[in-house]
Amino acid sequence: MQSTDIARRGLMLILSSPSGAGKTTLTRSLIERNELQLQLSISLTTRPRRPSEVDGVHYYFTEKDQFAFRRDRGDLLEWAEVHGNFYGTPRQPVEKALASGQDMVFDIDWQGTQQIVEKMREDVVTVFILPPSFAELRSRLDRRAEDAADVIARRLENARTEIARWEAYDYVLINDDLNHAFEQLVAILQAERLKRKRRTGLAHFVESLLSTP
Amino acid sequence: MQSTDIARRGLMLILSSPSGAGKTTLTRSLIERNELQLQLSISLTTRPRRPSEVDGVHYYFTEKDQFAFRRDRGDLLEWAEVHGNFYGTPRQPVEKALASGQDMVFDIDWQGTQQIVEKMREDVVTVFILPPSFAELRSRLDRRAEDAADVIARRLENARTEIARWEAYDYVLINDDLNHAFEQLVAILQAERLKRKRRTGLAHFVESLLSTP
Repeated sequence: MQSTDIARRGLMLILSSPSGAGKTTLTRSLIERNELQLQLSISLTTRPRRPSEVDGVHYYFTEKDQFAFRRDRGDLLEWAEVHGNFYGTPRQPVEKALASGQDMVFDIDWQGTQQIVEKMREDVVTVFILPPSFAELRSRLDRRAEDAADVIARRLENARTEIARWEAYDYVLINDDLNHAFEQLVAILQAERLKRKRRTGLAHFVESLLSTP
Repeated sequence: MQSTDIARRGLMLILSSPSGAGKTTLTRSLIERNELQLQLSISLTTRPRRPSEVDGVHYYFTEKDQFAFRRDRGDLLEWAEVHGNFYGTPRQPVEKALASGQDMVFDIDWQGTQQIVEKMREDVVTVFILPPSFAELRSRLDRRAEDAADVIARRLENARTEIARWEAYDYVLINDDLNHAFEQLVAILQAERLKRKRRTGLAHFVESLLSTP
């Protein structure tokens, strides 16, 4: 019997970091590495769809009253309001994925993480990504030509707020080298997949092992 | 600042498996891979020293009354009596190693594991190694020319008893391929080293990060 044949419950890998610490790049790298077989969680949003976006791929787009209805019914694992728009994580696709052994990745902030951890503690693996220094964080944000000075200043303030939440996470990485940080994430994923509690098929496997005369 | 400069508390990696599932080979491979910087815990024993053995390298050799004295004083993290000889793990070298960030490996059975987990839960990472099948376990034991048939039969019975304890472990591996099992152990080690609770220097690092104007 191959080790990989053992049935397993999927896990929820949550990455949080201040803007500029590399979370988005790392998330994309994880998803694009096909052999890791990771799926990115798709958020529900009331924000208007941009022409480049596809419903069900980038977001699930919905209306505010629909969003409120689903939220109040407990359909969302976490939700937030940002600049008047609502964003949330629908519970049903996540539950379906986990039950089938599919791992999911979430690129969300500390408030979203807190809400998900409250509901799904046993399935969740949380990783906080820190920048190597505040100067490095600032220079990464400066290099993003698209952002105006006041946007960068606000992001730095948000970064401080976000960083202050590091203690709520299971793992903490310092992203001083993108490849190294990526390898560390892969190791965390590999290890968490080997946790006994996720390997739901082990009881059956051991039973057949012990029943051999 | 390099991620690896952050002070960290060492961990105790405990490997258990039935005889023949590869635990001893895997333990040796871990210790011999220098870049993993692992130290094997040395047991205290009342068994007579063999000519090939060095005190303080293979075992700490001691007398029965000394062993009993240290055990009763709470100096041992775990102990057992096997065929009239006593074996145990002295607490002090382990505490010293952990405090200095040195990780330790333990090759012990489920009873020793249970005793250590009770005393050191936060520092312990337990891994249970299963054989791919009972037939494979039997053939591995058969190939060990040194053992007589009745010894093999007793080991198979002990293997059943040991295997039945798999549910008490944090991680479970199936050793269907030695290289693969080794890589899985390395991933577990890498991940566990990144656990926030072990990275005792992070609070200081984040403080300096946030105090940058």
